[in-house]
Amino acid sequence: MTISSFNPPIRTLMGPGPSDVHPRILEALSRPTIGHLDPVFVEMMEETKALLQYAFQTDNALTMPVSAPGSAGMETCFANLVEPGDKVIVCQNGVFGGRMKENVERCGGSAVMVEDDWGEAVDLAKVETALENHKDAKILAFVHAETSTGARSDAKELVELAHRHDCLTIVDAVTSLGGSELKVDDWQIDAIYSGTQKCLSCAPGISPISFSERALDKVRNRSGKVQSWFLDLNLVMGYWGGGQKRAYHHTAPVNGLYGLHEALVMLQEEGLGNAWTRHTKMHNALKAGLEAMGLDFIVDEAHRLPQLNAVSIPEGVDDATVRGRLLNEYNLELGAGLGALAGKVWRIGLMGHSARAENILLCVGALEAILSDLRAPINTGVALAAVQQSLQS
Amino acid sequence: MTISSFNPPIRTLMGPGPSDVHPRILEALSRPTIGHLDPVFVEMMEETKALLQYAFQTDNALTMPVSAPGSAGMETCFANLVEPGDKVIVCQNGVFGGRMKENVERCGGSAVMVEDDWGEAVDLAKVETALENHKDAKILAFVHAETSTGARSDAKELVELAHRHDCLTIVDAVTSLGGSELKVDDWQIDAIYSGTQKCLSCAPGISPISFSERALDKVRNRSGKVQSWFLDLNLVMGYWGGGQKRAYHHTAPVNGLYGLHEALVMLQEEGLGNAWTRHTKMHNALKAGLEAMGLDFIVDEAHRLPQLNAVSIPEGVDDATVRGRLLNEYNLELGAGLGALAGKVWRIGLMGHSARAENILLCVGALEAILSDLRAPINTGVALAAVQQSLQS
Repeated sequence: MTISSFNPPIRTLMGPGPSDVHPRILEALSRPTIGHLDPVFVEMMEETKALLQYAFQTDNALTMPVSAPGSAGMETCFANLVEPGDKVIVCQNGVFGGRMKENVERCGGSAVMVEDDWGEAVDLAKVETALENHKDAKILAFVHAETSTGARSDAKELVELAHRHDCLTIVDAVTSLGGSELKVDDWQIDAIYSGTQKCLSCAPGISPISFSERALDKVRNRSGKVQSWFLDLNLVMGYWGGGQKRAYHHTAPVNGLYGLHEALVMLQEEGLGNAWTRHTKMHNALKAGLEAMGLDFIVDEAHRLPQLNAVSIPEGVDDATVRGRLLNEYNLELGAGLGALAGKVWRIGLMGHSARAENILLCVGALEAILSDLRAPINTGVALAAVQQSLQS
Repeated sequence: MTISSFNPPIRTLMGPGPSDVHPRILEALSRPTIGHLDPVFVEMMEETKALLQYAFQTDNALTMPVSAPGSAGMETCFANLVEPGDKVIVCQNGVFGGRMKENVERCGGSAVMVEDDWGEAVDLAKVETALENHKDAKILAFVHAETSTGARSDAKELVELAHRHDCLTIVDAVTSLGGSELKVDDWQIDAIYSGTQKCLSCAPGISPISFSERALDKVRNRSGKVQSWFLDLNLVMGYWGGGQKRAYHHTAPVNGLYGLHEALVMLQEEGLGNAWTRHTKMHNALKAGLEAMGLDFIVDEAHRLPQLNAVSIPEGVDDATVRGRLLNEYNLELGAGLGALAGKVWRIGLMGHSARAENILLCVGALEAILSDLRAPINTGVALAAVQQSLQS
C-alpha cells in the first residue's frame, strides 16, 4: 500500500453545502497552529464570539461555536435543554424535523409531531393547536430554513406562539445564518444552532450556537446531568465563557476556528443586510434563468429561501445522469433530493461565496447544455439572457 | 465594532497538544473544499481509513475519524458500548480516567474505579482484583498514554486480563497513536480512540477510532438506541462504511480531513516504526538536557512516555512566570500541570513534528536561560552539551 497526497479537483459547489469557500478563508485555515489556551488564541475566541453575536443579531453571552458539525450543534441544544420526561413539540416539514424527533427521544423526552408536507412552511395554526392540546409541553422546536426543501418558516411568529404557551424554542438555522433575515434577539429565540459550511462559506466542521439567559437558566437548573459530556454547556462555558481564566474542557479545533473567524470578518465587511440582499438578488437571477428554461420550483414563492432552490427534475430525465455529467464535464456540484424527494428534485445552493453571478451563469448554462443533449422538454436559447437581464435590473 | 483578520504568532508547540503542525499539513488544510459526497472525496475517505488502519496496526473494518475532537472520540466509544445498567471497570491514574467515569455514568452505566497515583502506570494486580470482585463487569476502560502525567500503562497485559474475565476493552490512545508502540490487533484491543493534534501533528478537531468485530457486535445488538444521534455508529457506519453507496449522516469536516490524510501519508512515508524510534531518540536527548540541569521527571523510567514529559518545577520557582516568559520571549509553549499537579510540573510534549532536535535545543536553552535569570537551583552551562551528545549517540 502506498497512498499519495490528496489533491482535490476544483469544484463549483452549488449543492446544499458545503458551499464554495473563499480563498481568504482557505488561506486562514492554513495559518500556523497555536495552543488552544494561548492568550492570543483566547483573544481570537472573544472576537469570534462578538462576530457571531453580530451574525445572529443577539447580545446573548452564550454565543459560540461548538467544536463539531451542525448535527452536533443540534444535539447540543436538545441534550442541554431536554430532560427525561420532557414533552417537546417538533415541527416537521422536511428531513431535519425528523432528526429533531430522534434527538428528543434519545434525550428521554417525548416528541409531539406537527407535520407539514415537504416543501411547505410550518403551519402556524397546526402548531397553535398542538400547543393548546399539550399544555405540559416545555419546548417548541422547528427548522427556520429547511435545507432538504428550501422552505422558510416564520420563526418570529412561531417563537411568539411558543412563548404565549410558556414553551422555550429551539431553532435550526443551519441554512439561514448569513443568507437571509435572522434576528435572534428581536424574535426572542431561546436556543439556536447553525453550521459554518452554508451561507458563511466556511469549511464544514463547526456549529455556531446561541442560548438566551432563559434557556441557560434551564440548563443550569437541570435535575440531572446533561447526558453528553462533550456537549454539556455547563462544562463548555468554563472554556468559552471564562475570559482569560479558561478551564480546559476539550482541545478546540484551532485552524477550523481561524477559518470561521475569517469568514465572520468577511461577513462584517460586507454587512449582514448586504449579504441578505445579495442572496436574494442572486436567487432572482437563478430563478429567471431556470423559469425561462421551463423548470419549476417546488416551494411556493412566499416561503422560498433564496439560498436553497429545490427545482423539479423534468419528466423523463434521470437525476443521477445529469448530476454526474455536471460534475464530470463542468466540475459543478448540485444537490440531490433527500427522502421522498430523491430523484425528483435538484437542490441548487446559492450560499455565501457561491451566491455570485459567475456561478449562476455556469449553472444555468451547463444545465441547459446537458438537458438539451438529453432531449429533455425544456426551452433552449433563452435562459442565459434571462439571467443577465435579472442581474442588471 | 471592527474586527480584523487574525494573524497568529509563530509558536513552537511543546505542550500536551496541539503539537507543531508540519507546513505540508497546514497547506493541505487550505486545499479547495469539495462536497462530502463527491466520488473523489469518497475515495479519499477510503484511503484515510486504510492509512488509519496502518497507524493503529489493525485490520478492523470500522477504523475511521470521528468528526470532532478526541473527547468526542472517547464519548463515541462509551456511548456506543455502554448500555444503561452496565458495569464498567475504569482505571484512573490521571485526568482522563476521571473523564471516562463521567462518560460511563452519563451513559447510565456504573463505574468501578481502580485508582493509582498520578504518574504511576495502571497496576495490573489491582485490575485483576477488581475483575475478580465484579464478575458482572462488561467493560474494562483505561488510558494507554496518560496525557496529564506522561505515564504509559501496559495495554497488552490489561487487555489480556480483561478478556480472561469476558470484558471488552476501551482504550484511550490519544497521546500514543503515532508516538509509541501501539498494536491494536496484536493486543486485541476492542475499541480505541485517539486525537489528531498529538503525535500525528495534525490540527486539532478530529478523533480517529477503531472498533473490533467483537465490539461492533455489542453495538449492533444493543437493546436500546445509542443516546447520541451524532455519535451513533450504527448511523455513522452508513456514511463511512458504505463505499460509493454512502448515506448522508452529517457533513464531514472536509478540510480537516485533508489535513489528517496528509499527516497519515507523512507517517506512512516515515514508517511507523521509525516514528516510534524518533520519539524515543528525541525523548532521550531532552532527558539528557533536563537531567544535566538537575530537573527530575515525575514518572518512573520504566513507564515513561517519550512524547509527554512531566518534569518537576524546581523549588521556589513560579510556574506561570516561567511559562509566560517562555511564551513571550521565545514563542515557546510548554504545558501546565492539571489537577493535583497544577503548579508542580511542566508537561513538555515531543509529539510528531515537535519531536525534533531544533525544538529540544530551543526548549532546553530557553528554560536554562530563564531559570538562571530567576536564580533557580539548577546546574548551568552543561545542558546543551548533554543534548548534543545524546543526539549524536
